[in-house]
Amino acid sequence: MGRLLTIHDLKEQHRARAPKMFFDYVDSGAYTEGTYRDNETAFQTIKLRQRVARNISERDLTTKILGKTATMPVTLAPVGMTGMQHADGEILAARAAKAFGVPYTLSTMSICSIEDVAKEAGAPFWFQLYVMRDRGFGAELMARAKAAGCSALVLTLDLQMLGQRHKDLRNDLSAPPRMTPKIMLNLMRRPGWCMKMLGTKRRYFGNIVGHVKGVDDMSSLMSWTASQFDLTLDWSSIEWVKSHWDGPLILKGIGDVEDARIAADIGADAIVVSNHGGRQLDGAPASIDVLPEVAEAVGDRIEVHMDGGVRSGQDVLKALALGAKAVSLGRAYVHGLGALGEEGVTLALEIIRKELDTTMALCGETRVTDLGRHNLWRGGEPVGETGVGAKPLMSAVGA
Amino acid sequence: MGRLLTIHDLKEQHRARAPKMFFDYVDSGAYTEGTYRDNETAFQTIKLRQRVARNISERDLTTKILGKTATMPVTLAPVGMTGMQHADGEILAARAAKAFGVPYTLSTMSICSIEDVAKEAGAPFWFQLYVMRDRGFGAELMARAKAAGCSALVLTLDLQMLGQRHKDLRNDLSAPPRMTPKIMLNLMRRPGWCMKMLGTKRRYFGNIVGHVKGVDDMSSLMSWTASQFDLTLDWSSIEWVKSHWDGPLILKGIGDVEDARIAADIGADAIVVSNHGGRQLDGAPASIDVLPEVAEAVGDRIEVHMDGGVRSGQDVLKALALGAKAVSLGRAYVHGLGALGEEGVTLALEIIRKELDTTMALCGETRVTDLGRHNLWRGGEPVGETGVGAKPLMSAVGA
Amino acid sequence: MGRLLTIHDLKEQHRARAPKMFFDYVDSGAYTEGTYRDNETAFQTIKLRQRVARNISERDLTTKILGKTATMPVTLAPVGMTGMQHADGEILAARAAKAFGVPYTLSTMSICSIEDVAKEAGAPFWFQLYVMRDRGFGAELMARAKAAGCSALVLTLDLQMLGQRHKDLRNDLSAPPRMTPKIMLNLMRRPGWCMKMLGTKRRYFGNIVGHVKGVDDMSSLMSWTASQFDLTLDWSSIEWVKSHWDGPLILKGIGDVEDARIAADIGADAIVVSNHGGRQLDGAPASIDVLPEVAEAVGDRIEVHMDGGVRSGQDVLKALALGAKAVSLGRAYVHGLGALGEEGVTLALEIIRKELDTTMALCGETRVTDLGRHNLWRGGEPVGETGVGAKPLMSAVGA
Amino acid sequence: MGRLLTIHDLKEQHRARAPKMFFDYVDSGAYTEGTYRDNETAFQTIKLRQRVARNISERDLTTKILGKTATMPVTLAPVGMTGMQHADGEILAARAAKAFGVPYTLSTMSICSIEDVAKEAGAPFWFQLYVMRDRGFGAELMARAKAAGCSALVLTLDLQMLGQRHKDLRNDLSAPPRMTPKIMLNLMRRPGWCMKMLGTKRRYFGNIVGHVKGVDDMSSLMSWTASQFDLTLDWSSIEWVKSHWDGPLILKGIGDVEDARIAADIGADAIVVSNHGGRQLDGAPASIDVLPEVAEAVGDRIEVHMDGGVRSGQDVLKALALGAKAVSLGRAYVHGLGALGEEGVTLALEIIRKELDTTMALCGETRVTDLGRHNLWRGGEPVGETGVGAKPLMSAVGA
Repeated sequence: MGRLLTIHDLKEQHRARAPKMFFDYVDSGAYTEGTYRDNETAFQTIKLRQRVARNISERDLTTKILGKTATMPVTLAPVGMTGMQHADGEILAARAAKAFGVPYTLSTMSICSIEDVAKEAGAPFWFQLYVMRDRGFGAELMARAKAAGCSALVLTLDLQMLGQRHKDLRNDLSAPPRMTPKIMLNLMRRPGWCMKMLGTKRRYFGNIVGHVKGVDDMSSLMSWTASQFDLTLDWSSIEWVKSHWDGPLILKGIGDVEDARIAADIGADAIVVSNHGGRQLDGAPASIDVLPEVAEAVGDRIEVHMDGGVRSGQDVLKALALGAKAVSLGRAYVHGLGALGEEGVTLALEIIRKELDTTMALCGETRVTDLGRHNLWRGGEPVGETGVGAKPLMSAVGA
Repeated sequence: MGRLLTIHDLKEQHRARAPKMFFDYVDSGAYTEGTYRDNETAFQTIKLRQRVARNISERDLTTKILGKTATMPVTLAPVGMTGMQHADGEILAARAAKAFGVPYTLSTMSICSIEDVAKEAGAPFWFQLYVMRDRGFGAELMARAKAAGCSALVLTLDLQMLGQRHKDLRNDLSAPPRMTPKIMLNLMRRPGWCMKMLGTKRRYFGNIVGHVKGVDDMSSLMSWTASQFDLTLDWSSIEWVKSHWDGPLILKGIGDVEDARIAADIGADAIVVSNHGGRQLDGAPASIDVLPEVAEAVGDRIEVHMDGGVRSGQDVLKALALGAKAVSLGRAYVHGLGALGEEGVTLALEIIRKELDTTMALCGETRVTDLGRHNLWRGGEPVGETGVGAKPLMSAVGA
Repeated sequence: MGRLLTIHDLKEQHRARAPKMFFDYVDSGAYTEGTYRDNETAFQTIKLRQRVARNISERDLTTKILGKTATMPVTLAPVGMTGMQHADGEILAARAAKAFGVPYTLSTMSICSIEDVAKEAGAPFWFQLYVMRDRGFGAELMARAKAAGCSALVLTLDLQMLGQRHKDLRNDLSAPPRMTPKIMLNLMRRPGWCMKMLGTKRRYFGNIVGHVKGVDDMSSLMSWTASQFDLTLDWSSIEWVKSHWDGPLILKGIGDVEDARIAADIGADAIVVSNHGGRQLDGAPASIDVLPEVAEAVGDRIEVHMDGGVRSGQDVLKALALGAKAVSLGRAYVHGLGALGEEGVTLALEIIRKELDTTMALCGETRVTDLGRHNLWRGGEPVGETGVGAKPLMSAVGA
Repeated sequence: MGRLLTIHDLKEQHRARAPKMFFDYVDSGAYTEGTYRDNETAFQTIKLRQRVARNISERDLTTKILGKTATMPVTLAPVGMTGMQHADGEILAARAAKAFGVPYTLSTMSICSIEDVAKEAGAPFWFQLYVMRDRGFGAELMARAKAAGCSALVLTLDLQMLGQRHKDLRNDLSAPPRMTPKIMLNLMRRPGWCMKMLGTKRRYFGNIVGHVKGVDDMSSLMSWTASQFDLTLDWSSIEWVKSHWDGPLILKGIGDVEDARIAADIGADAIVVSNHGGRQLDGAPASIDVLPEVAEAVGDRIEVHMDGGVRSGQDVLKALALGAKAVSLGRAYVHGLGALGEEGVTLALEIIRKELDTTMALCGETRVTDLGRHNLWRGGEPVGETGVGAKPLMSAVGA
């Protein structure tokens, strides 16, 4: 094992340690994977303004997310089946987030249950929910989340119909899951992973098992859940959610400025600009390309978070400069988890922090809350019109 | 054989099963193949707006094409020598189209005859014609098409002079065809294909054989037909066609806004925006790049169809959003045919339908007839000018 | 040997037949070879408008170049050391040009002498000259050219200081030339070339040998000539040339609109927009990118020719559409010569002619003299502004 | 060893001769190395105007830099640990610069001491300084530089916090340095380098050793220095420097137009537009892309120099055309040093000079001081608006 200096290093370690179908589950996008790739590459077109001779000895990465202090403007995104990347994955990730001081979000589709994770998670501990056909079960989950001390609910809006990821199908990772020879072979190639997995009793969807009669093995659980995505979900459904959840509500999966306005109008506390990591609507623009117009439209009324393609502290800084209040990490921390367990999640967060801190300093800034479009460079503009200021720097983004 | 999830998977299966010179005949473009490639890649630059929280439980892919209902806004394009990709190819494709509920177009240059295909084809069954020097034979073909129940005539305008495809020449696939050692070798490598082909009596141009004295083998038929392309074709020739065909007339091969206006002026019922799949004028812009200006100019007077580079349901949706009333599949279904015969054509259509359905849903739409430019994302524009609306979204296209 | 369908096929055949250092001499540019590559690739960004239903049965490729009819709007450019690509190269090329009906230009740096080539060349037979320090010798060359029946003088302006082509230096092809082991080895690998070369007595610079005392072997000739480039050349030098040459004068090496204006002002009959095939000023824009502004500025006062990157009849058409009156082929015909001698030059011209003819027809045009910017497609422009007309279509070019 | 024709050839020779970790130290950038690569590639997008028929027989590359004549508008940049690329590296480089007639800048982090280099260096001999926590030591260094005859002080502003270069960490080239097996192996593979290094007594940081108690081996010196970067550096610190240095002051590491204005306001004599060769703020725009707006803003008040990505005389010319008064070479001369010692530095300078001279001539210019934006070509602009003149040619840059 070489030095683990970057998130990419952790990704390669993750690839080497987890069974192929679970690694691929994370490292994939819908259809052509165009949006999945764009999410990452779009960050490279954004250029930073280097500023010098500014006292950068005192630097502050802390910020407030939904009113609570985080040690950096980062959250851990909900990721389904995190517990299959490493035994007890959700618990380990939650523990690392707590120690680091950033919010952790548990997916409904987690392996470990809300209650088991809650024992180790610290505030802010968030719970992610889909709107399900079985509204009673949805209400029950919200009640459990509240009882477990979750301080915010993340409602995912961009997965009512499942996008197709070819890799999962080619890996036999389907719903319902079956133990095929291909999967068997992939497991046999990762004995370390298997040993750890055998050492834990959590190998089912902990939030769901026991709530539906006769649905108690992995296969039936996954199948049942897939049947629960409610295609009738509309903005009125959010009202129903709010009638069962009186805490902060974060709407995840906003990829359009109009949807962002509606989200603000109906009183959500935050939105996450997201295309589900390129796993749903292939052809959607990169998250970072949509962020500026969304932040411009609603940033003064509602907290704007974003996810998608964030693989470094530099990416975090660029998102903040374009209007994000916080940046949500998905694959970045899951690669750490798959590589080294809890220690890997911590390492991922430390890598991000150091990159963010250094980049902020070299931009001549000392507080993440001061970052803005004035930190971006707009190239190719006629001389004389470039300057410091509040003028939109859109040409630095996208295209 | 791996899973066949995409049109590209079918293409690879087609490559493995059909003799090289016939596969290459489909998988080629003129000269540098620049337009052939652009047709596909131009779709990738078009970005979709992700919309959420819209009730997408009831979705409708049906549309009316020339007044008749199709189960999705797709037609099967005329493709010469389809019967050489798989024995009885035209009959199998027509049967699949009928079962699926979309129009099938038979090429004049088909292996199976109008009459043989008509037995299996359902309405809408269209016939494609070139304007030939032998006007009597052209008139005869139109009469046969009418007698066989063809409901529309597709007149191809962009092939009066043949574009040069280097692959065909390098494969010895020339007019007139000869049985060279290279062709012999290619056939020997595909015994399955040969066995099926030996099991059918159709190995000649069924629409032409028997109509010209002494022209009765493959070689003489192909040679005779090549001599029939009439370089004097002009808009007045269309009047002559209309004097022999009183049903709906579709003009195929429109690649310019001025030609589209003339087509509308002379009373065609529909046009197909097309560059003949990049097989004629290399250097022509991608079809999808020309479509918007054509649809803008004549879309309110005439049905605008398009073909060229469509390899997924996402591509279909993008064409509809940019003004196409229907999208014509060529290679996409021929790859299915070459891979698996009738079953493969059906599979190709099912793949397209599922991709179209899912993509439409994730764009927050429920009816293909509602799709429009408001479903496209225009990146790189200054904040504040992006919005929902009827404003042209041209910058999303081309460039 | 596969089928020779394109200029690129001839190039590969040339590579296989000529000694490496002579092939490389042709297939190279200055420094990074950026301009050399741009010259070719810039053509690919220019898109053509496909027009249909136009009577294309009668097509005419002939044009007038400097008042004389050419069978197509093409000339053969002066290329130094053509006679090293194939024995008696200049004579064979001149013969092919004569038979085909296009002007041939003999380089001062030819292997065969003006007089020897004149015996086989037909009108128009042009002679290319550099302004040399030894003005007497320059005057003598003009007198010889006139005596040999040359109908125009091509004065090269962009090579007073030699650009550095790394390949030549690495191949030991330097001035003065030496017979190094590397060169010896390269020659031994091409016995066919050597046999033909031994069969001719012309292996020196025929225009120069005998005119300077003690300068009579290849090495001393090349060295003497290199010393003759006159760095003091300015526009007044053109006056001196005109005082010795009363026929048509073509100024070659115009790469800038200001220089084009001066050329027109001083009464040149034609200019060749050229960057010396990317062999002089690396970093200069592609010729086809400079052509439009030059043609716009002086096209009504003077004939505008161009060279650089032309490898197909499609390229010729694009140059004509952007204002060129004629297009000058360099590498395109030399590859034919290196591949097959006279027959190869003829084949190169036939390939270009067929491509030009087909492309013109598919653009809906019947006369090369009718080609113009209305044949180019301008992508990415707002709908409503695209149309047929005289409006500059610059966005189709360059960028 | 093939012919050494370009800086790139010298780079490959350098790679072959120096231990991997020292070569990599030079051939690397921060994080993704995006800015490191952009620095070079951005030059390729700038196009030159070819001008002909201008008397280019008398050419003058000399210029004044800070009032003193240089034989070309080039300086040698300060490069840390130059003495590890070749034994006595700083001395050899200074000697070559003196013989050539261009300024040499000694890095504080040099292996050889100011005094040792001063013996061989000629005027202009410049000294580079960081603002250190130990102000007394900083003052002492300035006093030593003055005593040694340094004519200007180069104050580096963009390295108060160290950017992370992954290669150095993977090569075990860390601060403090350790003799790891990997480093041992790399040294063993370069016996020639080791022999030369053993022949000199200078293998420590000569400017620092002896000034801090107990800091006298390589490891402790490097560690001590790293601790000296002063994060509190701001514009007021420059006043402190000026109170100890009354000679010309050059501020290096300006990457933004606002910082450039401040630098001019506080009375610096020159600035170097620089992103530290892409080694600090990854994501910063290429130096050549920032140069035009900086030169436009302050070029009339202060000398503007630049570094970053300069690998040829063509690059030098482009920088001059965009407003630089002088161009600073870093890697370009260090590659020469690592390849061939003093002779290599001289060769690097000769390559640059010849390329600059030839390119200037082919642009139709005879004096480097005449170069300007009129030498750049602006492509893709509408015809009629292109012309000679003072109008900004920004579209030629960046994008």
